[in-house]
Amino acid sequence: MINKLVNEIKKKNAPVVVGLDPTMAIIPECVKEKAFKEHGETLEGAAEAIWTFNKSIVDAIYDLVPAVKPQIAMYEQFGIPGMIVFKKTVDYCKEKGLVVIADVKRGDIGSTSAAYAAAHLGRTEVGSKSYGAFDEDFATVNPYFGIDGIKPFADVCKTEKKGIFILVKTSNPSSGEFQDRLIDGRPLYEIVGEKVDEWGRECMGDSYSYIGAVVGATYPEMGRVLRRVMPKAYILVPGYGAQGGKAADLLPYFNEDGLGAIVNSSRGIIAAYRNEKYGLAPKDYAEASRRAVLDMIEDINGIFA
Amino acid sequence: MINKLVNEIKKKNAPVVVGLDPTMAIIPECVKEKAFKEHGETLEGAAEAIWTFNKSIVDAIYDLVPAVKPQIAMYEQFGIPGMIVFKKTVDYCKEKGLVVIADVKRGDIGSTSAAYAAAHLGRTEVGSKSYGAFDEDFATVNPYFGIDGIKPFADVCKTEKKGIFILVKTSNPSSGEFQDRLIDGRPLYEIVGEKVDEWGRECMGDSYSYIGAVVGATYPEMGRVLRRVMPKAYILVPGYGAQGGKAADLLPYFNEDGLGAIVNSSRGIIAAYRNEKYGLAPKDYAEASRRAVLDMIEDINGIFA
Repeated sequence: MINKLVNEIKKKNAPVVVGLDPTMAIIPECVKEKAFKEHGETLEGAAEAIWTFNKSIVDAIYDLVPAVKPQIAMYEQFGIPGMIVFKKTVDYCKEKGLVVIADVKRGDIGSTSAAYAAAHLGRTEVGSKSYGAFDEDFATVNPYFGIDGIKPFADVCKTEKKGIFILVKTSNPSSGEFQDRLIDGRPLYEIVGEKVDEWGRECMGDSYSYIGAVVGATYPEMGRVLRRVMPKAYILVPGYGAQGGKAADLLPYFNEDGLGAIVNSSRGIIAAYRNEKYGLAPKDYAEASRRAVLDMIEDINGIFA
Repeated sequence: MINKLVNEIKKKNAPVVVGLDPTMAIIPECVKEKAFKEHGETLEGAAEAIWTFNKSIVDAIYDLVPAVKPQIAMYEQFGIPGMIVFKKTVDYCKEKGLVVIADVKRGDIGSTSAAYAAAHLGRTEVGSKSYGAFDEDFATVNPYFGIDGIKPFADVCKTEKKGIFILVKTSNPSSGEFQDRLIDGRPLYEIVGEKVDEWGRECMGDSYSYIGAVVGATYPEMGRVLRRVMPKAYILVPGYGAQGGKAADLLPYFNEDGLGAIVNSSRGIIAAYRNEKYGLAPKDYAEASRRAVLDMIEDINGIFA
C-alpha cells in the first residue's frame, strides 16, 4: 500500500491528504436540516448529515488527491451510527480509488494490539471465515508501549501489504511535555524516530517502508532532524493551515526525490466554504473544498520551485 | 464516579476488576456453535457469541466485584457488530450496578481529544439535543501528547463526574523501551506520574482524584515509586495472573488506607473454565469465572493480612 500511496502522489502530483473530520459545527445548516428532518436531532440524524457532507466532498476532490484521512474520534462520538458512517466513508473512498489513512491513533500490547491491527488493517477470523472489519489502508499508531505495541501492526502490514504511521512528534503546543524531554542529550521524539527507522527497515516497500511516522508541520526544525533519522519512513504531516503550519516550512520533511512526506489539511479543506476568498455559499461547500485542495496543492508544490 | 468506585470497592471488599476481553479462542465451542447456527460464521455471529458469553459472566460475578473493564479492541475487530455488542455490554454492566472502565487507550489533541472524551465519558451535541454515545464511567488515556491530550478528558470528568486512568507504566515486556528512558536521571514513567499527580489535583473526588493511572503489576518496584509520586491517583493495575504479576507484589500499589489500587484480571477470570483446578466443563464457564473471582479476591486481600 505504501507503493500505491507513492504512485498516487506522483500521478496526481499532490503530496496532500484531506482530513475528513466533520463536526456538527462545520457541516452547513442546509445539510443538517435535511438530515434532521428525516431522522430527527438524533445520532442517526447526525450520521446522515456527516454522510451527505463526506460524500459530496469526496466526489469533489477524489481526482485531485491520493488519499484521505478520516479521524475516527469525529465518528466515534456519534456512537454506533457514527461508526457505521465511518465505515461507509472508508468504503466509499476506497471505491473512488483513494488511499484511506485511518487516523485512529490506537496503541496497546500483545493480543490487544493484534486485535486493533486486525480491526483496521487485517482480517478477523470467525470460525472458518475471515473478514476485514474496518479494512482501511493505513492506520496511525501510538508508540508509548514500545515494540510490543508495534509488532502486531508490523506483522499485519507485511501480510496485508498495508501501512502505519507511528506518532513521533505531534503538532500540538504541549507535545514537548514528554516528546521533547532529553534522554542522553537527545529528545524522546528522536529516540522514537530511530526506532521507527529500525522497525521500518524490516517492512520495506519499493522505496519507502510500510512503517511511516507522524511529524507535525508546526515543528519544522524537528522535521529536518527526523527526516535524516528516518530516511525510509513516509512522514504524515498534520498541522498545516488551521494549526499554523506554513508550506514554506515543509521542505525539510521531504527527501531529495521530492517524496517522503504527505501533508494533511482537514478544516482548511472541508470548511473552505467559510473562506471569503472563494465567495461561495455554504451550500457550495463541496466546490469550495475542491478549490481549497487546488490551492493547497499549488502552495505545497511551490516549495519545490 | 471515583467516589462510587471507592465505595463499591469497600462495600464488596474487592479491589478487583474483571477484564471483559472475549476472543473467539476463549469463548467455548458450545456458545459459538449456537450463535453460528443462528447467524452463520459472520461478524454478527461472533458478536452474538460474545454477547451470550459476556452476559453469563456478568450475571455470575456482578455481586462480587465493583467494576468491569471491557477492552474495546476485542470488540472493534468485529467491526460494527462488535461495536454494537461493546455498547450492549457497557449498558448491561451499568444496569447491574457495575462501574465500567472502558479500556480504550485513546489519545489525541484538542478537538479530537474532546471528541473521544465526548464519545466515551461525555455528551455529544446534535442540534438542540445531546446524547451519551458509549457512556462508560472511566476510560484509559494515552499521555504521549501531554496536557493537550488530557485536558479535554479532565474537563469532561469534572462536568460529568467521571474518571480516567492515564497510562504511566504499562505491563508489557517492552514498556521500558521509551517509558524507562532516563530524563535528568529519572525515568519517563516517573515524569508522567508527576504530571498525573499535578493534573489530578485539579479534579479531586472525596479522597481520590478523578484522574488515575495505569501501572502494570509486572513492575512492583516502579509501582512503589509511583504510589509515592501520585498519592491521590487510583492505580489501575493490569498484568496480574496471565501476564505474570503476583498478589504478593501488589502491596506497594496500595496506600496505607488499603485503598488506591484496583487489580485487573481478564483471561484468568473469563477463561477460568480451562483451569483444571475448578474441574468444570466448558459449558460451566460462568460458574468457573465466579470461582476464579472469589479466588482472586482472597488472593489479593491476603496481602493485607
